[in-house]
This record gives sequence, structure tokens and C-alpha cells, in this order.
Amino acid sequence: MVRVFGMAESGNCYKVKLLLSQLGQPFEWIETDNTKGATRTDEFLRMNPNGKVPTLEISPGVYLPESNAILCYLAEGTPYWPSQKMQRARALQWMFFEQYSHEPYVAVARFILFFLKQPQHAELAEKQRRGHLALAVMEQQLAQEPYFAGENYCIADIALYAYTHVAGEGGIDLAGYPAIGAWMARVKSQPGHVPMRG
Amino acid sequence: MVRVFGMAESGNCYKVKLLLSQLGQPFEWIETDNTKGATRTDEFLRMNPNGKVPTLEISPGVYLPESNAILCYLAEGTPYWPSQKMQRARALQWMFFEQYSHEPYVAVARFILFFLKQPQHAELAEKQRRGHLALAVMEQQLAQEPYFAGENYCIADIALYAYTHVAGEGGIDLAGYPAIGAWMARVKSQPGHVPMRG
Repeated sequence: MVRVFGMAESGNCYKVKLLLSQLGQPFEWIETDNTKGATRTDEFLRMNPNGKVPTLEISPGVYLPESNAILCYLAEGTPYWPSQKMQRARALQWMFFEQYSHEPYVAVARFILFFLKQPQHAELAEKQRRGHLALAVMEQQLAQEPYFAGENYCIADIALYAYTHVAGEGGIDLAGYPAIGAWMARVKSQPGHVPMRG
Repeated sequence: MVRVFGMAESGNCYKVKLLLSQLGQPFEWIETDNTKGATRTDEFLRMNPNGKVPTLEISPGVYLPESNAILCYLAEGTPYWPSQKMQRARALQWMFFEQYSHEPYVAVARFILFFLKQPQHAELAEKQRRGHLALAVMEQQLAQEPYFAGENYCIADIALYAYTHVAGEGGIDLAGYPAIGAWMARVKSQPGHVPMRG
């Protein structure tokens, strides 16, 4: 059975929990709180020298970090990884978009408000502003197609749902994005969907 | 023939040029200078709503942005994309590492010094510090295996070479990373290698 070193309140870690649940693949969750230094111990750094969760233990001693690489690894050969080359490219396009243009703003705004509880933080407004830029790009895509890679739900949707659905916890209001709202409802209605909490 | 909308001095764009050259695949390069607003025109935003280069035109009207997604798309079915599942996962792990933990520091330090020419910029020291953290993680990997996905050169090496080999232009000295130095020499010796400039 695979083991997931993850933090329950992390969107990046939730991605792995959600896909494993939808795949019906049993897993053990090892709660690893990076806000308390659990990813900086010598033991953890031997598993992932970059000191981040999630980290997947595929088999004893074989570890895979990076949430979106874990999604690709687990989804290969399943309906959650597109079977067409162009759709695979689109899925990867949106997963790299998520890590470069979305997570550093939407997730970090949430980190500042939800974990640090610092509404006066000097960087909050700029993170929120750039988070809205990412959401506007997503809104354009979702106004044209039901999912990020086209007609079908796949791991790109999981990657972008993880922090988008809790954007409000970073003070980023989703009310102005109707296509994102409709997409989030479609994501939640997928077979095997599990919420981040509980 | 594919067309690459790219900026010659951008590492992200160089990745695409390098892979296409190694594949021997003809391409047209359309110089697109994002420091002069060329990625924010209505025409460009119709190709890539996120307003970034590189953007690959696969066929008329079909565009793929995100440098590392472009690498995956072009490399599929070639020796530059690992044939083993675990090596593919490793390649993706390092490509996501590159976009999240490396590029925002190593490339941005270079942007501040090389493009903006602002050695007194308030964020430069922190970008350099975090760039060194990324390089230390790479050094650990390259002290154990010759390439990022193991025994063979692949697109993960292209992704990480692009900004690492010009880290000095961001004031990030590579002298303390002998395994990275040896790896850069191996990358440069690959068949079909072309430099970023010229």
C-alpha cells in the first residue's frame, strides 16, 4: 500500500488524497505538519531533499515528491489521464500553470490569512491581485469547455480545484467567476469525490 | 512546421529551441519580446490568455503554452521522454520542481540583474538565497546519478539546464556545486546541443 506524507489542510496534499480516493486505491496517510517543521527533519529530508509535502512512498525507500508529478504517476493508465496526446498536453499545460501562476498567489494568500492569520501582511494584497489574474485565465477556459483538458474531467481539474475551492479563505472572492463556479460543482459531482476536510 | 513564439534571451524559450534542435525538427521562431509588451497584445492573448512565452503553434490556430508542457508534448515517443513509468515520474518531479522551486528564484535574480540592471533591487538577495537552496537540492541528485531521471539525459535536464547555466547572470555563483558543473558539461556534450545564444 502506498503511503502519503501530507498535511490535511494543504491543497497540494489534498490533490493526492482526492485522486487516490477516486481511483479506489487504498493508502496510508501520515500527517506531516510543515508549519511545525516536520518536513525539515533529517528523516524527512532523506525522503525528499526539497523538504515539502506531499511526498508519496511508492514502496519502502522509493519516494516521489511534487503533487502534480504524483498525480501523473498515479493517473497513468486510468481515465484520469487523457488518452489523447493533445489532451495530455493540455492537462500538463494547466498543471504547470497551476504551480507557476496560480498556487504561488491563491495558496499563499490563503496561507497568510488562514494559517498566519495576518490580514495586515505586506504581501497579501499583491498575492490576491495576482490570484485574480490566474482565476480570470481559468474563467476564459471554463467558459469554452467543461474541463481543463476539454470534455472530460482529469487530473488537471484535481490540480486546479485543490486551492481554487478554498480561495475564499485567502480573501479571494469567487463570485465574479460564474464558469469557475459551475466547474467546481461539476468537480464535486464526480464519482468518488471526497472533500478536503473530513 | 511548428512555430515558436519566444524570446531569445529567455531560458524558458531556450528549452523549446534546444529540444526541437536535438529532435532535428524544423521550426519557425517568432521573436516575441515580453519586456516590450509583445505578450500583452490582443492578438497574443488570443493565442495564450496567460500572456507568456514560449507558446507553441502546433498547427494554425492550435497553441500550447507552458515551456515544460511543450517539452513533454514534443518529446513523447522520442528518446527524450523516458520509456519507464518511474523515470517519467522522476522527470515530471524535476520539471515541477524547476517551475516552483528554481525558476522563480534563479531566473528572477537573472531578470533583476541582466534585464532590469538593478543590483540594489530590494528582492535580489532573497531570490539569490532561494536560488541557492534549489541548487543544493539539484547538487544532491547529481552527486548520485548522472541525470535528473537517472542514467539518461531527458527533457528534465533540458528544463533545469536552461536557467541553471546562466545563473551567474543573476549573481548566483555555481562554483560550489561540482556535480552541477559536471552535469552541465554532460548536457553540453549531447548530440544536437545548441547554445542559448547564436
